[in-house]
Amino acid sequence: MEHVQQMLSTHPHPSGLDAGALAECIEACFDCAQTCTACADACLAEEGHLQHLVRCIRLNLDCADICDTTGRVLSRQTGSDAALIRVQLQACATACRACGDECARHVEGMGMEHCRVCAESCRRCEEACSRLLGVAA
Amino acid sequence: MEHVQQMLSTHPHPSGLDAGALAECIEACFDCAQTCTACADACLAEEGHLQHLVRCIRLNLDCADICDTTGRVLSRQTGSDAALIRVQLQACATACRACGDECARHVEGMGMEHCRVCAESCRRCEEACSRLLGVAA
Amino acid sequence: MEHVQQMLSTHPHPSGLDAGALAECIEACFDCAQTCTACADACLAEEGHLQHLVRCIRLNLDCADICDTTGRVLSRQTGSDAALIRVQLQACATACRACGDECARHVEGMGMEHCRVCAESCRRCEEACSRLLGVAA
Amino acid sequence: MEHVQQMLSTHPHPSGLDAGALAECIEACFDCAQTCTACADACLAEEGHLQHLVRCIRLNLDCADICDTTGRVLSRQTGSDAALIRVQLQACATACRACGDECARHVEGMGMEHCRVCAESCRRCEEACSRLLGVAA
Repeated sequence: MEHVQQMLSTHPHPSGLDAGALAECIEACFDCAQTCTACADACLAEEGHLQHLVRCIRLNLDCADICDTTGRVLSRQTGSDAALIRVQLQACATACRACGDECARHVEGMGMEHCRVCAESCRRCEEACSRLLGVAA
Repeated sequence: MEHVQQMLSTHPHPSGLDAGALAECIEACFDCAQTCTACADACLAEEGHLQHLVRCIRLNLDCADICDTTGRVLSRQTGSDAALIRVQLQACATACRACGDECARHVEGMGMEHCRVCAESCRRCEEACSRLLGVAA
Repeated sequence: MEHVQQMLSTHPHPSGLDAGALAECIEACFDCAQTCTACADACLAEEGHLQHLVRCIRLNLDCADICDTTGRVLSRQTGSDAALIRVQLQACATACRACGDECARHVEGMGMEHCRVCAESCRRCEEACSRLLGVAA
Repeated sequence: MEHVQQMLSTHPHPSGLDAGALAECIEACFDCAQTCTACADACLAEEGHLQHLVRCIRLNLDCADICDTTGRVLSRQTGSDAALIRVQLQACATACRACGDECARHVEGMGMEHCRVCAESCRRCEEACSRLLGVAA
């Protein structure tokens, strides 16, 4: 995501949000959307364990969709609605926490390495959303 | 969306949510995602008025993405996270209200017929989300 | 999707595509996106059969994403690129055929009713894309 | 997108596609989806030039949706359908070329810096798709 910063700095009328926290959150959202999409698919390929990963796949799919949409909403600077951005950030932090918690369970319990990477991406995105909610207060 | 009801009734383990309210909300979400996508594009084609429709286009795009994601999350019944569903429904109701209000302004002010249809779809989706939030309480 | 037709008829500058075939294809795309999302989730809940439904879930997820994007691209009338629309319609018809074929296999073999409904939605969308490719030739 | 490589290397059954070309293409798709979303919004904020950027916004929105879907399809390794992947890569390369060409026009003509960054991201994604189509042949 090498272009996020450049797109923010070339915008004719950037929103009032802190550019550093915003860029970090946009990147974290798209990274988490990709990681969750890939983790759902990796879980699907875990023949012996698949039955235990059903809820993980479900949360991966929800989290991927919500992160994707949050990354898009945050990428827009024009005519922003502050209440809408806040509640979407809350939805995203909630989804990342639920998915990250579920993934973390399968690292210890079953040694799922893709769940470890995904949990890490979910944590980073949850924190980036919380940070942006703080500065956007 | 003739298949929403059938997909709910053929699911092996439907979630506890009221099937009627759920089907209505899923349909309203996808309908609103389509309507907002089309309204952003119709606004873009309003040469003489385009400058006054910039915020409308922005909210259309946000609302389309959020409705789309909400429709997907609600279409899943397996391993649901109640807190995640609630906050995504709140985000969706907020987006529909903001977009519906903005569209309604251009019906009276500028006679924009696509904004009238879109405002109607936003209202229906906002109400369907609120209803589901009520029964999911 | 009661508003698709109205959004097309209120557009200030509709594209040259046949409005009836276009509305039908937009509706079929969003219907198929919803049905495939729901079918992937229903498959995930089929405890005894899950292992045999892995490829079905994968194709459901691809088909949902591709139909969603195709429905959005077709919902836009302004500044269309004919080559882009043609190749996206081809991608959509290909995804619907692959997913519909896979789903159909599980109706006969395992009596999966959600796969029957989904296969039906995939067929309708594949045909609507092919019809639009015909008139867009 | 620091986790793309890690997700590929922790997948239990990676597809036969070249992992380096695949990771590069997934990253380019998500980067281009973000850049195009941001460019559509930046164009919308260009008061004096907006009327000349209508087609650019349209292509930005199509390209964002198509890149997003392509990045998701490529992130899945399980039960892949080679024909589906090929035609989606072709759709993505076509969208990136159309959008990149349009953006490039506004760099020279109007000095739009966000269009310069976006054209760069589109070119990189078009090339990554073409490369993957080559090795996937």
